[in-house]
Amino acid sequence: MTEIKARQIVLASRPKGEPKPTDFRLEAFSLPPCSPGGLLLRCLYLSLDPYMRGRMDDRKSYASPVAIGAVMSGETISEVLESGHPAYAVGDIVLARTGWTTHATSDGTGLRKVDPALAPITTALGVLGMPGFTAYAGLNLIGKPKPGQTVVVAAASGPVGSLVGQLARRAGARAVGIAGGADKCRYVLEKLKFDAAVDHRAPNFAEQLQDVCPDGIDVYFENVGGAVWQAVLPLLKPFARVPVCGLIAQYSSSPTDGPDLLPATMRAILTKSLTLRGFIYYEFAEEHYPAFLKTVSKGLSDRSIVYREDITDGLENAPAAFIGMLRGENFGKVLVRLVSEV
Amino acid sequence: MTEIKARQIVLASRPKGEPKPTDFRLEAFSLPPCSPGGLLLRCLYLSLDPYMRGRMDDRKSYASPVAIGAVMSGETISEVLESGHPAYAVGDIVLARTGWTTHATSDGTGLRKVDPALAPITTALGVLGMPGFTAYAGLNLIGKPKPGQTVVVAAASGPVGSLVGQLARRAGARAVGIAGGADKCRYVLEKLKFDAAVDHRAPNFAEQLQDVCPDGIDVYFENVGGAVWQAVLPLLKPFARVPVCGLIAQYSSSPTDGPDLLPATMRAILTKSLTLRGFIYYEFAEEHYPAFLKTVSKGLSDRSIVYREDITDGLENAPAAFIGMLRGENFGKVLVRLVSEV
Repeated sequence: MTEIKARQIVLASRPKGEPKPTDFRLEAFSLPPCSPGGLLLRCLYLSLDPYMRGRMDDRKSYASPVAIGAVMSGETISEVLESGHPAYAVGDIVLARTGWTTHATSDGTGLRKVDPALAPITTALGVLGMPGFTAYAGLNLIGKPKPGQTVVVAAASGPVGSLVGQLARRAGARAVGIAGGADKCRYVLEKLKFDAAVDHRAPNFAEQLQDVCPDGIDVYFENVGGAVWQAVLPLLKPFARVPVCGLIAQYSSSPTDGPDLLPATMRAILTKSLTLRGFIYYEFAEEHYPAFLKTVSKGLSDRSIVYREDITDGLENAPAAFIGMLRGENFGKVLVRLVSEV
Repeated sequence: MTEIKARQIVLASRPKGEPKPTDFRLEAFSLPPCSPGGLLLRCLYLSLDPYMRGRMDDRKSYASPVAIGAVMSGETISEVLESGHPAYAVGDIVLARTGWTTHATSDGTGLRKVDPALAPITTALGVLGMPGFTAYAGLNLIGKPKPGQTVVVAAASGPVGSLVGQLARRAGARAVGIAGGADKCRYVLEKLKFDAAVDHRAPNFAEQLQDVCPDGIDVYFENVGGAVWQAVLPLLKPFARVPVCGLIAQYSSSPTDGPDLLPATMRAILTKSLTLRGFIYYEFAEEHYPAFLKTVSKGLSDRSIVYREDITDGLENAPAAFIGMLRGENFGKVLVRLVSEV
């Protein structure tokens, strides 16, 4: 076989606040030999997701931090180049936790086959993958919208938010999306068919949000935090549910001087009998993933569910795409295409 | 009939921060005549509860504020002096929302008969009343402790906290109480039979709490907020439940300058899949009050559940007792005895 020129991106330094390009380093590396019974993978698409920012910090979370000098963690859609594993054949497409890399070896642990006939393979990283299931689980199992209720979600043109709103509408609820800029708001209204969209960059954002939620908010799907949460808080109705899925606005921020906004949030929880519930998708995966897959893949095939991807070419451009995503510069699910011919 | 010298306490001014004696005013008033079909009540015991502090402020909450010059709202155990109401006879003991007053008239709305044979009548304001049911509902319906899990509650010698811990032990959980001072901690350990008690006034309080929760905290029953919450937060385990019942530490505080403690709480909710759920007891009353009453009155009669009252004599002393309670100076359920002969 020809020698493989494998490359990966490692964590060069822990970011202070917003990550910088120099916090990442592109490295060539020698692929270890494929062990007996193992696989050699060529990575086709890398998924970039906000949770990865947390992995760059050296503090306790639901998963361990990436070590300095280690490959950035992440999921890819990969093709099997060699296989000694009975369950996988050369040419199979798999979802794998390879990290930010062009190639990887695997003993098969944690791999999942992706059926290219079901939907485009990239959807396994987006609307049919972790982000999609996160939307489904948070909305249906924690948010529990009832017909006629108002569901609000931020980052509404992103992979999680876009499905939250579309599923809320299927449940008979009103979907209100918050997004950054006129283009995204138009997309949320026209393509995703939300009932309303509000631009969080507008100077009177809080007022606009109130205008489109005249009866208040029953479910707020939280994936932003910060100023958006402050605008949502006074609009939450008694017994409102808040699935807490992400806090992208505070991932790169340092402790702030104040004012202390905690007492007002606690007071609202108490006086309005709110439920705030943090979750990670895998809590619900075993029990609910099959139903999710059935619902959403049907929605894709009859085009009642739509999605949007924001694809960057080349592993070397992954850090810039990631930094842009944390700033909200992406428009749709962020993917990095690692090979030129797919 | 002889003329009744009725007195009541009205809200004289809205407190800035901690209430002052001058925020209240004792007034003599003429009792309106008992309407046909109505009742005349003599109030025997007034209940003082932390939620009343919220009623003194002119801001939105789950109930309307008390107007300036209006009688302070609250519940009493009262005796029926006159009755034209078919359901009540002279001499009946009732639970009534009369406010802070020695006498009241009523058309019967919202009254509940109290059976003096079941338990001492004051328990209808405490362990068998709103505080007791609050403990029961928050612990069992939101906290849901499993055998072997650790339940932490602050104000552990108070009417809510003391029952939270005792019910947690009955559920097979470990009960850890937080209280102010050595006497209360000893009571929590020796009389209430909690597994551990920690004095929140100790300089190394957070460390002591960690020591008695070596496996972390599964359920934190929140009725304090402030510094206690900050000590609890790092000890909460994944999937911990936090019934938010009260926030006495912040009722009289103004917005603070900082640091902003909200991001750390939101981050913990997210990364540890926490549930924070505010509640007011009446959400659960219709469905669960009968089971509560059965469980706890049985516990009282076989002395497996104990309670403690902190009784002040004379309506004129209610403001001082209330102010002391907000400072944590009470030791047990705070009641004001309004007549000398009961």
